Amino acid sequence: MQPQRDLRGLWLLLLSSLLLLFEVARAGRSMVSCPAACLCASNILSCSKQQLPSVPHSLPSYTALLDLSHNNLSRLRAEWTPTRLTRLHSLLLSHNHLNFISSEAFSPVPNLRYLDLSSNQLRTLDEFLFSELQALEVLLLYNNHIMAVDRCAFDDLAQLQKLYLSQNQISRFPLELVKEGAKLPKLTLLDLSSNKLKNLPLPDLQKLPAWIKNGLYLHNNPLHCDCELYQLFSHWQYRQLSSVMDFQEDLCCMSSKKLHNVFNLSFLNCSEYKERAWEAHLGDTLTIKCDTKQQGMTKVWVTPSNERVLREVANSTVTVSKDGSLHFQRVQVEDGGVYTCYAMGEAFNETLSVELKVYNFTLHGHHDTLNTAYTTLVGCILSVVLVLIYLYLTPCRCWCRGVEKPSSHQGDSLSSSMLSTTPNHDPMAGGDKDDGFDRRVAFLEPAGSGQNGKLKPGNTLPVPEVTGKGQRRMSDPESVSSVFSDTPIVV
Amino acid sequence: MQPQRDLRGLWLLLLSSLLLLFEVARAGRSMVSCPAACLCASNILSCSKQQLPSVPHSLPSYTALLDLSHNNLSRLRAEWTPTRLTRLHSLLLSHNHLNFISSEAFSPVPNLRYLDLSSNQLRTLDEFLFSELQALEVLLLYNNHIMAVDRCAFDDLAQLQKLYLSQNQISRFPLELVKEGAKLPKLTLLDLSSNKLKNLPLPDLQKLPAWIKNGLYLHNNPLHCDCELYQLFSHWQYRQLSSVMDFQEDLCCMSSKKLHNVFNLSFLNCSEYKERAWEAHLGDTLTIKCDTKQQGMTKVWVTPSNERVLREVANSTVTVSKDGSLHFQRVQVEDGGVYTCYAMGEAFNETLSVELKVYNFTLHGHHDTLNTAYTTLVGCILSVVLVLIYLYLTPCRCWCRGVEKPSSHQGDSLSSSMLSTTPNHDPMAGGDKDDGFDRRVAFLEPAGSGQNGKLKPGNTLPVPEVTGKGQRRMSDPESVSSVFSDTPIVV
Repeated sequence: MQPQRDLRGLWLLLLSSLLLLFEVARAGRSMVSCPAACLCASNILSCSKQQLPSVPHSLPSYTALLDLSHNNLSRLRAEWTPTRLTRLHSLLLSHNHLNFISSEAFSPVPNLRYLDLSSNQLRTLDEFLFSELQALEVLLLYNNHIMAVDRCAFDDLAQLQKLYLSQNQISRFPLELVKEGAKLPKLTLLDLSSNKLKNLPLPDLQKLPAWIKNGLYLHNNPLHCDCELYQLFSHWQYRQLSSVMDFQEDLCCMSSKKLHNVFNLSFLNCSEYKERAWEAHLGDTLTIKCDTKQQGMTKVWVTPSNERVLREVANSTVTVSKDGSLHFQRVQVEDGGVYTCYAMGEAFNETLSVELKVYNFTLHGHHDTLNTAYTTLVGCILSVVLVLIYLYLTPCRCWCRGVEKPSSHQGDSLSSSMLSTTPNHDPMAGGDKDDGFDRRVAFLEPAGSGQNGKLKPGNTLPVPEVTGKGQRRMSDPESVSSVFSDTPIVV
Repeated sequence: MQPQRDLRGLWLLLLSSLLLLFEVARAGRSMVSCPAACLCASNILSCSKQQLPSVPHSLPSYTALLDLSHNNLSRLRAEWTPTRLTRLHSLLLSHNHLNFISSEAFSPVPNLRYLDLSSNQLRTLDEFLFSELQALEVLLLYNNHIMAVDRCAFDDLAQLQKLYLSQNQISRFPLELVKEGAKLPKLTLLDLSSNKLKNLPLPDLQKLPAWIKNGLYLHNNPLHCDCELYQLFSHWQYRQLSSVMDFQEDLCCMSSKKLHNVFNLSFLNCSEYKERAWEAHLGDTLTIKCDTKQQGMTKVWVTPSNERVLREVANSTVTVSKDGSLHFQRVQVEDGGVYTCYAMGEAFNETLSVELKVYNFTLHGHHDTLNTAYTTLVGCILSVVLVLIYLYLTPCRCWCRGVEKPSSHQGDSLSSSMLSTTPNHDPMAGGDKDDGFDRRVAFLEPAGSGQNGKLKPGNTLPVPEVTGKGQRRMSDPESVSSVFSDTPIVV
């Protein structure tokens, strides 16, 4: 009977292992069906408010929306889903106890467009945490304990449009997120309200285009009260930007440990905000942006005389460039006035007016005039000083010369010889030097006496015949007197 | 003391009314700030899981997302929000006890794009309930008690892309929602899984384009098992449509009060599904669609000889039309073979092959030949009958004329007078009538004897000389015999 019993045991073992295999296969099959804790509607898995301590293990690969809100999740590990969920576009993890997210947690969901991590217990955002989510459009991180935004946390989120960081502990303004042409080129909403921001990079913020400022929420922060802050928000108020208009009463600042409304800082005596006109000078090149509250609007500019500015017109000083900016090639006085930009968008239309003041002189030419006068003045003073030095500090050489050539050119007057002893005055020394000297002299001459340092035609210059130091005679006494006549300050 | 008391009462009244005014003003101001039960992050209001019996009364007008899920709401009245929420794009009302929604409930939120009404207790959907939501893209109605979909409930939802009606009590398939060019032109996902559908309009479903069928979820319904149903889903399986591929094991049907998987109907002995070739005859005009799983794909067709089909080519029988279909102008036998459509989309690419069989005869030309023969036959028989009637049924009128003019034109033969005695045969009565007669006679003449009723040139017609009824002589006896000579079937 022993062998028979053994055989029976073997059969039982075989049967049980077969059953086990069947169970495993069944479990494998159930991987693609709805998890027990969830409600499934085709590609939507709603597993909210189920007191789940972790993400259900088997999620169907076709899942498009996964709602895990109002559960007890505390960690999101790299291996939270064993299958890649390439079709997942929305992941809702709000109202959990998340305090850790693995830096590889979002690798299995590369096509995510909407990620809700709000109302959790996150303290830090690791660098490159979201960098796999290159299709992400909306990221909700409000109501966490985030203290600092790592400069690289949101790198490579080229599609991100809305980032909610409200109700955290952030104390540094993350300017790198909003700077134009920066990491997040499509960001139109950055909510930093109800944080711990004290100082803002005010000049940088003012430079941002209106479509970014329109969605830059900064209310309920203990900002430092000053007139610059008031001016900033006054401008935003003037432009009717949503970020200020919707939260005027919540825009506050701290002064002497007291909270004040930004628009009620009478104790600071700040000057009222006034929109300034654009200023230009004759002949300037100028570009005026149509700074709309929305991106990608269709823009039409109208001149002060109610004519539409066209895109490409030959012989026109004013045109509209491809991005909708007004472009002046050479501003004329008659270009001044109020230009109006009509912008048509999907959600709303906008009308912007810009005043242009043109001054009736060229700023560029003005500088030139000043420079010439300045250099002439310096040149004259230098000449006088040199002449005086020559006259009074070289008695020895005068005497020596007098000894060397007592009888050469008897008819020369004293004044002429005195003037012509500038060391560079040597026509044989080189054309360049001669030109330089001549030009200066001629410039100082009154009209009619000679042109640009070219010696007067009346002077007969015996240049070929004269050699050595005898050329001192060539100098024209008139040109020296002209130096002094052009320097009224000295004379 | 009485006047003093009155005065005090008046003061109290004034004071209390002032206080009331202040309260009202405060309430008015608080309308634009965050409701007590909600968590506010700029334009997001999260009021979920707050056991709210009704929607908070004062909602800021700038709200973009309002989350009221997991509350105790039971009715959504017309006046649920006193302020219009024109910026609201997402309204989450899931996991409540909603059993009534006013037909005007969605008037204050005209720009809603996402509406979640899942996991409630809705039983009916009134007509035009959602018709104000002309921007709505996603509508979640799964896990309710909906018994019937009103034919007008989803009217005017021109932007609706996804409609989830899973886990309800629906027993009629709402074909009007998916028919092409119908009410919901952008609908790509209709989830009708886990309902009470028993019968489907199978031929109509098969005609739908693949991009609709791809998102038409029908699993977990007590469908009636038959071979047509099997063929339908086999085709969808062959095309790898998501609605079947993701839920193969949940696609079931009822037979003899038992649930069966649709792909396991061996007891019905259904024939296997086979993709059929397109059939055409010589000279046919034919359009073959590139029936992709996704809308708006870029399509390229390749011929059996691996050449790309171009859009507009002169002298080419096959072209690609604007919508990416393959168009044959006049099919030739050599056009037969397997054509391949390569479709490039945003999410994925697709390759479709279509076989074309061309029969070596013209179905259309065959019909033509038959028609000509038939009409010729009928024409001949009619002519013979008319001639016979003319010959044998008009003796009286012949005799009368003979009596009237017995001696005129003596040389006339009997046969010629017989032919010319039709009552209308009078050249003086009008040219038209005469023409008619001539034409008939000539039509019956054999080729060469005269053209289209013009009398033979050999006949010398004394028309100017002959007046009155003497023209009877003009008729040609040959033309009578020609009637018979042109009817080979009779002869």
